[in-house]
Amino acid sequence: MSDYYKVSLDEAEMPTQWYNLIPDLPTPPPPPLHPGTHEPIGGPDLAPLFAMALIEQEVSTESYIDIPGGILDVYRLWRPSPLYRARRLERALGTPAKIFYKYEGVSPTGSHKPNTSVAQAYYNHQEGITKLTTETGAGQWGSSLAFATAQYGIECEVWQVAASYRSKPYRKTMMEIWGASVHPSPSDVTEFGRQLLAKDPGHPGSLGIAISEAVSMAVDDPNTRYSLGSVLNHVLLHQTIIGEEALLQLDKVGETPDVVIACTGGGSNFGGLSFPFVREKLAGRMDPVIRGVEPASCPSLTKGQYRYDFGDTAGMTPLVKMHTLGHQFIPDAIHAGGLRYHGMSPIVSHLYEEGIMEAEAITQVECFGAAVQFARAEGIVAAPEPAHAVAATVREALACKESGDEKTILLGLSGHGHLDLASYDDYLLGGLVDHEFSDADLSAAMAHVPII
Amino acid sequence: MSDYYKVSLDEAEMPTQWYNLIPDLPTPPPPPLHPGTHEPIGGPDLAPLFAMALIEQEVSTESYIDIPGGILDVYRLWRPSPLYRARRLERALGTPAKIFYKYEGVSPTGSHKPNTSVAQAYYNHQEGITKLTTETGAGQWGSSLAFATAQYGIECEVWQVAASYRSKPYRKTMMEIWGASVHPSPSDVTEFGRQLLAKDPGHPGSLGIAISEAVSMAVDDPNTRYSLGSVLNHVLLHQTIIGEEALLQLDKVGETPDVVIACTGGGSNFGGLSFPFVREKLAGRMDPVIRGVEPASCPSLTKGQYRYDFGDTAGMTPLVKMHTLGHQFIPDAIHAGGLRYHGMSPIVSHLYEEGIMEAEAITQVECFGAAVQFARAEGIVAAPEPAHAVAATVREALACKESGDEKTILLGLSGHGHLDLASYDDYLLGGLVDHEFSDADLSAAMAHVPII
Repeated sequence: MSDYYKVSLDEAEMPTQWYNLIPDLPTPPPPPLHPGTHEPIGGPDLAPLFAMALIEQEVSTESYIDIPGGILDVYRLWRPSPLYRARRLERALGTPAKIFYKYEGVSPTGSHKPNTSVAQAYYNHQEGITKLTTETGAGQWGSSLAFATAQYGIECEVWQVAASYRSKPYRKTMMEIWGASVHPSPSDVTEFGRQLLAKDPGHPGSLGIAISEAVSMAVDDPNTRYSLGSVLNHVLLHQTIIGEEALLQLDKVGETPDVVIACTGGGSNFGGLSFPFVREKLAGRMDPVIRGVEPASCPSLTKGQYRYDFGDTAGMTPLVKMHTLGHQFIPDAIHAGGLRYHGMSPIVSHLYEEGIMEAEAITQVECFGAAVQFARAEGIVAAPEPAHAVAATVREALACKESGDEKTILLGLSGHGHLDLASYDDYLLGGLVDHEFSDADLSAAMAHVPII
Repeated sequence: MSDYYKVSLDEAEMPTQWYNLIPDLPTPPPPPLHPGTHEPIGGPDLAPLFAMALIEQEVSTESYIDIPGGILDVYRLWRPSPLYRARRLERALGTPAKIFYKYEGVSPTGSHKPNTSVAQAYYNHQEGITKLTTETGAGQWGSSLAFATAQYGIECEVWQVAASYRSKPYRKTMMEIWGASVHPSPSDVTEFGRQLLAKDPGHPGSLGIAISEAVSMAVDDPNTRYSLGSVLNHVLLHQTIIGEEALLQLDKVGETPDVVIACTGGGSNFGGLSFPFVREKLAGRMDPVIRGVEPASCPSLTKGQYRYDFGDTAGMTPLVKMHTLGHQFIPDAIHAGGLRYHGMSPIVSHLYEEGIMEAEAITQVECFGAAVQFARAEGIVAAPEPAHAVAATVREALACKESGDEKTILLGLSGHGHLDLASYDDYLLGGLVDHEFSDADLSAAMAHVPII
């Protein structure tokens, strides 16, 4: 294996358990609170929204959860995903560092999202649910849920932010290919949507509004549940297969990472890759730096506050303790749509607060520059979200060049950018601008956050 | 392996030789002729256009040609490509047939084209060439050459049909990400292009015109050569790694195909998958039906004539004996751009004439219908070109359901459709129309073909 480029796993080597980090944490993350009573919420509060198996996973104290065969069979359409050694990028940078990247762009939708959408569709189908609703922005999550529901023959109804529905029609087409119904949000099929359209027929919508519409349709129908693509514990749990595979693959070539780098928006890609390495770190079996990378214009970890806040703009969800920029903060319209979220997964926030991980914020101009360099060296055109992790990897590799350190870097490449080429065009034409988040922005955004 | 979904090969199992079918054919294909003298052409005639190593491969009588390590290293970025058992599609169709598909969409550009672009860039670089020129329509070939030249640090200049350059900007962006220069064709950088623009500043261009521009730029500069993405013997040679891998993968699970199905435009995807199986068939080691699938609106094999014709519209290339609809035939603007070519590779034409393979023509409405069914079952959204092979596979599998035959079908899935979603949108909205090629079309198109 001295000159390998790709480290593959056979189907038979695919992990058959997800890893739950919570029991291994030195202290547990604070519980979510009811938005009205501010009391900790439990399973029954969530039952109208999620399948019971998913609620059990959300609060589970087991370290490992078996992946059912009916999920493994669908995972096999693209998993195990490849781990690459970035020999050409190393040479292009002139770094002594060894760079590995775990590539999730081989999934049917081109990202890591199906790792959880398949699991969510499976459990709902098992419990007799016949339809799932969800919201989506640019459409990556919506298309992943549409793919997953098609595998189990259940319906999928997606509310897509109207501005994206109109300006980025291709993800909508993907959802429809897989049989989903897609509404621009606000829509005329919910009471809330109709109210907003009455005031403004051309309303551009927002993720917060789309969540409200998708949730209301699930709550109103006993055979329908709602599905979320990030932030929640069970979503991050499903993604840990990424890191478990990467551990096996690095072990095959005798490597241990010194640095694990992934982008983080809601936290599902970051948690999926890094949590198994956090386990190894906490157990003293290795000691990697674990680094999350976020956009300079939406830096919830590096600039946000760690406190209870709402998950949605309207303030209807449970209150969760997380790093937040304030639930009414509207991030700049940067191209990495998957990183435009005011908050951060409670587990990731807790890890950051405990000093188990670190974080850095990078501008999108630097990210696209690094992604172009990566594409020319490694061939793969990264999505704008993992372009943030690519930029952080280039920074680390150049620091190694300076210091002479032969570090082993593991990079999470969560998806390809074949549906994001317009954003590369903006970059190549010099049209990208970055607004760095300021203290004044924070003060303004925090004014609406409840004091608990 | 009783319940496998994917048959993987390790890097170490990747074939290290391309297969040249020509020496194994019962009779050799007729030679190409000089457009002026009508005499057979040789290597020296081609030297201004192609690297010497490629010209040697074009006329080689060796059965196997070693793949240099410098090419294998780049192949490793995505090869060996996966072979899938389409268990979900089999269930959805209720067929007793076993369906396998070899998937080339995992390459950086999302199709099989890099198998030859990488080889062409490598040999030109080895011979000191510093720039490659080529033409492209929708952009799949141009982006594949741009990716390949970036791997070896040589320049790439692409002439893209102006209508596509303006209406489909994303492939242009991909080419630019990999560092290529892209001109709309006709362009103001060649004499021929300037002549056309003087007459019509908004000229939409054509593949024939773009070829003329790319060729003229190569001929005029001793450090520049030209690169073609299909039709020629050396291009099909490079693609045979697809079929060689598929043979190894089927062998791993103890299967022998009864039918091998691939779409064919210029012939590179079809030849790449099928030629190793043709070898096995001619040697009597297996007896699969080998089936090429073409669009009903551009049916060069099933409706064209087998005779000498030009490869380009302007009549500047060598004359090659092939199935042709006439070099001045302009196919309908169907969405499978890669299958819109008036002729067919001389080797594929020869195989068809000798009765070693068969062919069928299918309308695009049937193809998109089958591709949507495939996507819902298998997850992968196919490009419009391999959608033709998917449709032929569905036909075969349904015939097996009727007859009870448990045939083993091998399908070539040459690329994903993430950049072709607008065409799916047209299909889903019912906007696709098919023009079936008629005898009157043939008479009209053949009037311009020279009589040799």
